Amino acid sequence: MTETNLSCVLYGPGKVRFEDRPVPEIDDPHDVLIRISYVGVCGSDVHFWTHGGITRMVSDEAPLVMGHEASGIIHSVGAAVTNLQIGDRVAIEPGFPCRRCQQCKTGRYNLCPGMRFAADPPDTHGTLCRLFRMPADFVYKIPASLSLEEAVLVEPLAVAVHGVRRADVRPGQTVLVQGAGTIGLLTAAVAIAYGASVKSVGITDVNEAKLDFAREYLGCTALRPDTEATPRAVAAQFKKEMSLENGVNVVLECTGVEASAQAGIYALAAGGVFVQIGLGKPLQAFPLLDMFEKETVFKTSFRYAPRDYEIALDLLDSEKVDLAPLVSSTVPFERASEAWEKTRRGEGIKNLIQGVQE
Amino acid sequence: MTETNLSCVLYGPGKVRFEDRPVPEIDDPHDVLIRISYVGVCGSDVHFWTHGGITRMVSDEAPLVMGHEASGIIHSVGAAVTNLQIGDRVAIEPGFPCRRCQQCKTGRYNLCPGMRFAADPPDTHGTLCRLFRMPADFVYKIPASLSLEEAVLVEPLAVAVHGVRRADVRPGQTVLVQGAGTIGLLTAAVAIAYGASVKSVGITDVNEAKLDFAREYLGCTALRPDTEATPRAVAAQFKKEMSLENGVNVVLECTGVEASAQAGIYALAAGGVFVQIGLGKPLQAFPLLDMFEKETVFKTSFRYAPRDYEIALDLLDSEKVDLAPLVSSTVPFERASEAWEKTRRGEGIKNLIQGVQE
Amino acid sequence: MTETNLSCVLYGPGKVRFEDRPVPEIDDPHDVLIRISYVGVCGSDVHFWTHGGITRMVSDEAPLVMGHEASGIIHSVGAAVTNLQIGDRVAIEPGFPCRRCQQCKTGRYNLCPGMRFAADPPDTHGTLCRLFRMPADFVYKIPASLSLEEAVLVEPLAVAVHGVRRADVRPGQTVLVQGAGTIGLLTAAVAIAYGASVKSVGITDVNEAKLDFAREYLGCTALRPDTEATPRAVAAQFKKEMSLENGVNVVLECTGVEASAQAGIYALAAGGVFVQIGLGKPLQAFPLLDMFEKETVFKTSFRYAPRDYEIALDLLDSEKVDLAPLVSSTVPFERASEAWEKTRRGEGIKNLIQGVQE
Amino acid sequence: MTETNLSCVLYGPGKVRFEDRPVPEIDDPHDVLIRISYVGVCGSDVHFWTHGGITRMVSDEAPLVMGHEASGIIHSVGAAVTNLQIGDRVAIEPGFPCRRCQQCKTGRYNLCPGMRFAADPPDTHGTLCRLFRMPADFVYKIPASLSLEEAVLVEPLAVAVHGVRRADVRPGQTVLVQGAGTIGLLTAAVAIAYGASVKSVGITDVNEAKLDFAREYLGCTALRPDTEATPRAVAAQFKKEMSLENGVNVVLECTGVEASAQAGIYALAAGGVFVQIGLGKPLQAFPLLDMFEKETVFKTSFRYAPRDYEIALDLLDSEKVDLAPLVSSTVPFERASEAWEKTRRGEGIKNLIQGVQE
Repeated sequence: MTETNLSCVLYGPGKVRFEDRPVPEIDDPHDVLIRISYVGVCGSDVHFWTHGGITRMVSDEAPLVMGHEASGIIHSVGAAVTNLQIGDRVAIEPGFPCRRCQQCKTGRYNLCPGMRFAADPPDTHGTLCRLFRMPADFVYKIPASLSLEEAVLVEPLAVAVHGVRRADVRPGQTVLVQGAGTIGLLTAAVAIAYGASVKSVGITDVNEAKLDFAREYLGCTALRPDTEATPRAVAAQFKKEMSLENGVNVVLECTGVEASAQAGIYALAAGGVFVQIGLGKPLQAFPLLDMFEKETVFKTSFRYAPRDYEIALDLLDSEKVDLAPLVSSTVPFERASEAWEKTRRGEGIKNLIQGVQE
Repeated sequence: MTETNLSCVLYGPGKVRFEDRPVPEIDDPHDVLIRISYVGVCGSDVHFWTHGGITRMVSDEAPLVMGHEASGIIHSVGAAVTNLQIGDRVAIEPGFPCRRCQQCKTGRYNLCPGMRFAADPPDTHGTLCRLFRMPADFVYKIPASLSLEEAVLVEPLAVAVHGVRRADVRPGQTVLVQGAGTIGLLTAAVAIAYGASVKSVGITDVNEAKLDFAREYLGCTALRPDTEATPRAVAAQFKKEMSLENGVNVVLECTGVEASAQAGIYALAAGGVFVQIGLGKPLQAFPLLDMFEKETVFKTSFRYAPRDYEIALDLLDSEKVDLAPLVSSTVPFERASEAWEKTRRGEGIKNLIQGVQE
Repeated sequence: MTETNLSCVLYGPGKVRFEDRPVPEIDDPHDVLIRISYVGVCGSDVHFWTHGGITRMVSDEAPLVMGHEASGIIHSVGAAVTNLQIGDRVAIEPGFPCRRCQQCKTGRYNLCPGMRFAADPPDTHGTLCRLFRMPADFVYKIPASLSLEEAVLVEPLAVAVHGVRRADVRPGQTVLVQGAGTIGLLTAAVAIAYGASVKSVGITDVNEAKLDFAREYLGCTALRPDTEATPRAVAAQFKKEMSLENGVNVVLECTGVEASAQAGIYALAAGGVFVQIGLGKPLQAFPLLDMFEKETVFKTSFRYAPRDYEIALDLLDSEKVDLAPLVSSTVPFERASEAWEKTRRGEGIKNLIQGVQE
Repeated sequence: MTETNLSCVLYGPGKVRFEDRPVPEIDDPHDVLIRISYVGVCGSDVHFWTHGGITRMVSDEAPLVMGHEASGIIHSVGAAVTNLQIGDRVAIEPGFPCRRCQQCKTGRYNLCPGMRFAADPPDTHGTLCRLFRMPADFVYKIPASLSLEEAVLVEPLAVAVHGVRRADVRPGQTVLVQGAGTIGLLTAAVAIAYGASVKSVGITDVNEAKLDFAREYLGCTALRPDTEATPRAVAAQFKKEMSLENGVNVVLECTGVEASAQAGIYALAAGGVFVQIGLGKPLQAFPLLDMFEKETVFKTSFRYAPRDYEIALDLLDSEKVDLAPLVSSTVPFERASEAWEKTRRGEGIKNLIQGVQE
């Protein structure tokens, strides 16, 4: 039987086609082919769907297979693969680095200039296809307790793990997570798994429904900032609602909103750490004088680095994080654009697209 | 009403007297007086009781008030004290440093050469008395959920916290704790609170009853070493029983036994960390070649350092560690030696001595 | 002979009086009295002289003894002092902390909320007096090779050491220091002492005379930013002049100027560290998108922490840093305002005020 | 012209042949071929020459090309190589890892179980040949100021860099280096380049000639242990000769001798770090009680990790380390065994073997 590779290809804003593309070949003995089971939708997918790209654009001449959050089943393996077998259920880390540059060698492959990340124009295609090829060491067998739907969310969970590791959250610390979307919720859950007491974690959002979900999902303090107030006043409000005299030890900023970041800085205790996980305006103002007197450390967190996927899977295997409540909807492969539209309208937390049905 | 200060004083091996000693005065405005509620017994107390000291000995000329694990109620406070009030229920960190040396200033007061630690011959008396004086910043208000009996165990819990922090245990790591006595049990509990998965933690002991208790208390793998086997074979046994191909990332050694430490080193994966918490023979042999090829880091963990008590209390407040099951017995103040004898005979996990009854 | 304590007291902008104030007493046995030899002038002194303060102002009701960079000779010592003797030549760390708070105990006394820093309104007086009292552990005997004039500059050198330690500069790194005033020059010198190759260090300034001095003093690349260019273009210019393809590993920002900080961020390589040492506008804009993709770590550096003074003295003793070329002028005690004026006009690098002559 | 590949092949103890072996092919486009210029002799080469191997032995059935410290000139490059050109003078890092395992990805490729290290029986041949193949990212262009003879010593220099980085030596620390052979000398030189003051570094040896060389080469204190004294007494002697009251902050042990390691531990100050660089007996006794009270950190240092070669070359380019004085002799390729014999007899510091002459 000849294999086919039906794929969901974007040609421009709102312009998607379902095409049979060539089945990838296992040229490198360390590669595997994966039959894609589910693909998740995140904000960047919506941006591609509505604008045709972010910095680099797709076009009729350079169309792009969409998708980067994905789970699947091993279809075939190269001769040198030892960690995976045909039929294994897997989560996929959707990028692989050059393995030779200084960043790769020193344990920071997320900064590799040669990174090939799924659905990156012009020519690194994504996971919205029947068969997807990856080096086996970026493909992870999932525990039996995890569904293939949930396995899609290992990707945002790895983003959360990376952010929490950048902040080095530990027991005894107070933590403020800003934003209660998928990343914010998972970041708070991971901070708790890293030892922060539920009593010592606050999560913010301007949307009351998200705060309700966060209260239920995490059990921690949910904080609605007064959007009319100054960042400094919002910080004071947060500290008061969290019963903290000196501020929080760690802020994990997942909104990308300038005023939110400023409030986060003001909410920090002396010696605290701020990690920017969400991305917003290219140029943002920070309260430098306040940071100066507190010797604030400000870090950014970019994607995921070595061990983040393994740690994410360990948190799932030990039931410290539950992904099931975050899966909101599933649409068939050929109706992928409905999932993008749903996400664009803010419906649900994580909307999934099914893989190609046999 | 004139205050008295009945105290339990050791004059030599097996020679104890209960005497009314002077009530300490609050000379320094940062000091507090504590009415002692309970005092715990640990191995070093037994050693004093049976041998009259460890390196420095008590004598008729230099008798010593016993006791260093203690809880109590604030009796009076100096003028500059702000963190405590009369009547507060407290856990006591039983040593205070010079605050001026390099070790104190760089955050390692446990290494301060001027440390004044409770029940340290010849002249730093212990907590087995009615009224005990300490600087207020080494006395910690306990949460309402914690009994004064449990509060005694904040001291060994702080030892466990210090060891786990030395090892820097985090989610995604595999951990072997050697020894299932008070320190071993608490160390394993703290490692889990720091994010190690219960599935990825093993605890060892030669005593099957202790292993049964550990299984019940911790839920993790309990390992009984084959005492006839070589350390290398014991390590292989541990790895097999924990289903680990590459060994553990962290060993927390709480037995002080040379063969146990060697097995722990062999059980480590490449790049792993070994922390010696229990103390045994002054000179011990280590498998250096094995450590060399694995770039093993070997650390010792001595008492507790800044933040350890606060973190211990945070773990208790957030119910990540439960001390109640470890409290085995309580005897009245004047029968302190019964608690030492019980501990000497290996009865119970933590035996307590009640404070002086009014 | 009755001691006197002639002091230079500020009552408001431009309003200074020389008064005989009470000789401080050694109440605490750990204190020493120092006969002040020289006091240095820094930007904050000039700000006090011209504006009467920075955030808190001096007044007729709350006048302030000026000065915080100082050297001297031990005049008398408390009973518990062991590290100093009468007659010792010393550098003075001009602040001492509470020793009891979390920041003090964890090795970060520069963040102590109870810090008593010299010349801090309303009531912590400065070093511009005949006799100054300090706890002995904040007073440092200087090597015989160091003059008392140079010893004044141990204070800014400690600022530089703290910044370089915050950045963790090591051999193999490329370093950009922004600003070639006293702090910038010393920061670059310390970065080189920490192992950065002279070939891999650049220092910037808009003032050509300062760049000439920097070239001579440090031997490294001196960079004059094109003040008409965008921060991104200035960064490209710096990288080109330093022959760097990927940018620098460390930026040490000593100007406090927003555009300079932005250029510094753009000049960083992926994974680089930026340390803000100079202080400018309270709210400053940073190129967050650029920092995001490079996982930039941004830190602030506030004064000095434990070990910074000792390390500064070690660098001087081992002749890795030479302070003599930075001493520009000396005026007698009673003409202190001339030194402030000189500094206000940008004359010289470090202008000194002599202590009271006997 | 057909290429040949004359190689020096060991068949057993004292049994060496010079054979023309196949010229390696550039199968991988990232590989380069290097014409070997010089090969250095170290203790392990001598061990192979006299015993036929260390843990795995060579034999008539499995002979081995010798050599792992080498310099050369680029002979040809694969299509994907961008960092090197034909004719470049290079230092060679003599091992390359799998690039896919956890150790490789987290920045510790020296612990990679798939490492292919030169002259490792049975089938990873060494550098004592005319043409040697390596991945281009493990081959480093050398500065014009460095001779090809000196370039051989980049390998032991990288060992020294790795050890000093493991210890995290910085300005303000006191350092004891044990052993004044090639590794000890370079380790001390690197510790000084990392900021340790020459006045604060001591180097030990039992051989007075080596100590004389060390004094001249490094300028630091040279210490001859009393071989009749206990390790504790030797430590006291070292501290006295280095005028240290509290002991050293860092010990870098390069002898592998048990008594030396013990003396090193005793010589450490509280909170100090001990790094074992030299390798000796598989099982060694350590003074655990002493380590316990001082919270000593004990590390081993194995080969070199990412950045060590680049840092070594930076230290050479900036003239912080001088290799020329360490080159003791050179013999022609076909007389390789003379260099091994010289080294076996303890003659010279580093003896070289010339590459095949055209």
